[in-house]
Amino acid sequence: MSHGGNIYQFARRLGCLPEQVLDFSANINPVQAVDLTCLLKVQLTPYADPDYSLLKQAINQRYPTPEGIDIELFNGASAAIFALLRGLQPKDVVLYAPLYGEYAHIAGKLGCQVHSINRFNHLKADIPERSTVIFVNPSTPDGQLYDMQDLLARWQAADCTTIIDESFLDFCETDSVAGHIKHYNKLYVIKSLSKFYGCAGIRIGFVLAETAAIKELQRLEPAWKLSSLDMAYMRQALANTAFIEQTRQQTAHLRDLLHHALQDSGLFDKIYPGQANFLLARLANGEASAPAHAPRLRPVGDGYQLQTLLEPSRILIRVCDNFEGLDKSHVRFAVKDEQAIARLSRSLKEIRL
Amino acid sequence: MSHGGNIYQFARRLGCLPEQVLDFSANINPVQAVDLTCLLKVQLTPYADPDYSLLKQAINQRYPTPEGIDIELFNGASAAIFALLRGLQPKDVVLYAPLYGEYAHIAGKLGCQVHSINRFNHLKADIPERSTVIFVNPSTPDGQLYDMQDLLARWQAADCTTIIDESFLDFCETDSVAGHIKHYNKLYVIKSLSKFYGCAGIRIGFVLAETAAIKELQRLEPAWKLSSLDMAYMRQALANTAFIEQTRQQTAHLRDLLHHALQDSGLFDKIYPGQANFLLARLANGEASAPAHAPRLRPVGDGYQLQTLLEPSRILIRVCDNFEGLDKSHVRFAVKDEQAIARLSRSLKEIRL
Repeated sequence: MSHGGNIYQFARRLGCLPEQVLDFSANINPVQAVDLTCLLKVQLTPYADPDYSLLKQAINQRYPTPEGIDIELFNGASAAIFALLRGLQPKDVVLYAPLYGEYAHIAGKLGCQVHSINRFNHLKADIPERSTVIFVNPSTPDGQLYDMQDLLARWQAADCTTIIDESFLDFCETDSVAGHIKHYNKLYVIKSLSKFYGCAGIRIGFVLAETAAIKELQRLEPAWKLSSLDMAYMRQALANTAFIEQTRQQTAHLRDLLHHALQDSGLFDKIYPGQANFLLARLANGEASAPAHAPRLRPVGDGYQLQTLLEPSRILIRVCDNFEGLDKSHVRFAVKDEQAIARLSRSLKEIRL
Repeated sequence: MSHGGNIYQFARRLGCLPEQVLDFSANINPVQAVDLTCLLKVQLTPYADPDYSLLKQAINQRYPTPEGIDIELFNGASAAIFALLRGLQPKDVVLYAPLYGEYAHIAGKLGCQVHSINRFNHLKADIPERSTVIFVNPSTPDGQLYDMQDLLARWQAADCTTIIDESFLDFCETDSVAGHIKHYNKLYVIKSLSKFYGCAGIRIGFVLAETAAIKELQRLEPAWKLSSLDMAYMRQALANTAFIEQTRQQTAHLRDLLHHALQDSGLFDKIYPGQANFLLARLANGEASAPAHAPRLRPVGDGYQLQTLLEPSRILIRVCDNFEGLDKSHVRFAVKDEQAIARLSRSLKEIRL
């Protein structure tokens, strides 16, 4: 199951409804900033404003950018990646892996030469001059938050076009690199709004870049692409400023709970120190010894076996073997609410090996 | 104002709200098949089913197609046209004009050689062998319904790739040409759902083609592109089968009213016999004589002058000079409700020349 699992297939196999699945596989905030009643006044008949002025205003209020930096909206970050790479037509694409599989997938389809750098071991590896670099910060599936200053300087020195995906940055206190665009005109920022705002069903994402670069990107875009319902929802979600700090605090607290649940299960010999709304963990293989304070390790085989063992509890998890540099001992868990984490914790402990 | 007008610009200029504009410029059914309360149970958190199974089922129920014909969904017909032409990469594109400007616009951007055929005078003109033909049926901005049998045979004989846009066909009793795909594997049908279902704010359109052609089209599509809200709305709208016949009857009745209103105004010397939810009319230039039963003709200048004269009534109309083969004496009016038509009728009559 790529793309953070497919609860629909999973539910069909278990003979239950998708909403009965406890989905730890998709890293989406389980809390929303507004409820659906905000949609009842939307005017569906007319075409939306083709400039998306009100939505852009709301985005600009939430993510202010200096003069000379512009925005292009897309029906989701996945559409934005496609449009951006199609527009840039890079010969060489450098991916800092592991990362969201869609990047390699799209670069491959577009016929780019894909170079992969393992950011765990070779963060400072040399890169081809004038290549197109793609970096996700905080990263997925491990949630590491990187200090971008040095990296940006190195990519700029190599005259690279640089794409930074900040879809999970809202979970951290850190500033966007968008401010650098005015000194580095080959820098692009991609952002999905669905992760932080808890709405994968809403298809809105955007690209920030220098005004001329955005103009070029718009050249091959259709006249209308965003749903009026999605726009109305997102405008109101973005306006809920209290939600930002609440979500950060709540996520940090729940991530701690999840960390304990994973550690206490004795199934994992490593839990990555993630800063976003998910945690990557590695299943113990029975060889490594557990840290002194941890319970005895219980090797469970691989992530697929764990997935099967959790099926009776209707819990879906994400095995990370299709992330380059990881294997099927790596499993990702989204940060969910207390009740869900308690259920996961119980199910992990009840696994009889 | 291209694309059927922009009520937002118009409202800003008049200093009123967009919803106070009486918009005759956009050919969107003013009636909806379902109301927005149908959205309140939508689950926004999870990703939508990446196969869009339920929506495809609903579309297939409403527009049944034989075995071997497949569907690809897009976030609107405009996105579908872009994706289709980008995928086909045609050298020569033949447009039967006048037609929706987006086709020439996109074909031009993609570097195609655009050939234009005036379908009023040269419907049977020769076309380059193996070119890509685009035909809208019923046509816009005049709403003429064509018998496609002979045309399809001629295009197939010339080994053309043929794209038929049936975005307005639901207003007629006529069958789709999709049934021909099984004998003509270079035939594509494009359809927007927003016109008939009265929801330009919902971004869902689709392409029907042979299974292999759809597979090829999907190759360069992002993992997710449709809003869960839009899909939920559309599924329920498609399920309202009573709406189909109601809308056809209602549109035919209101189109007659609109026809009378235009004729009675004495401003037009020609009203095209449209079969869809809009009428194209030509302003009298003061030279032609009116038919005996019509009131004396009152030449008003061009469509832009008429637009200005209707501004105090907050009525927006569509001047058709950016449709190839038409000029600024051509004006299009959407079929709207009785009250709106009565207001238009009054405003047209009150024009003092």
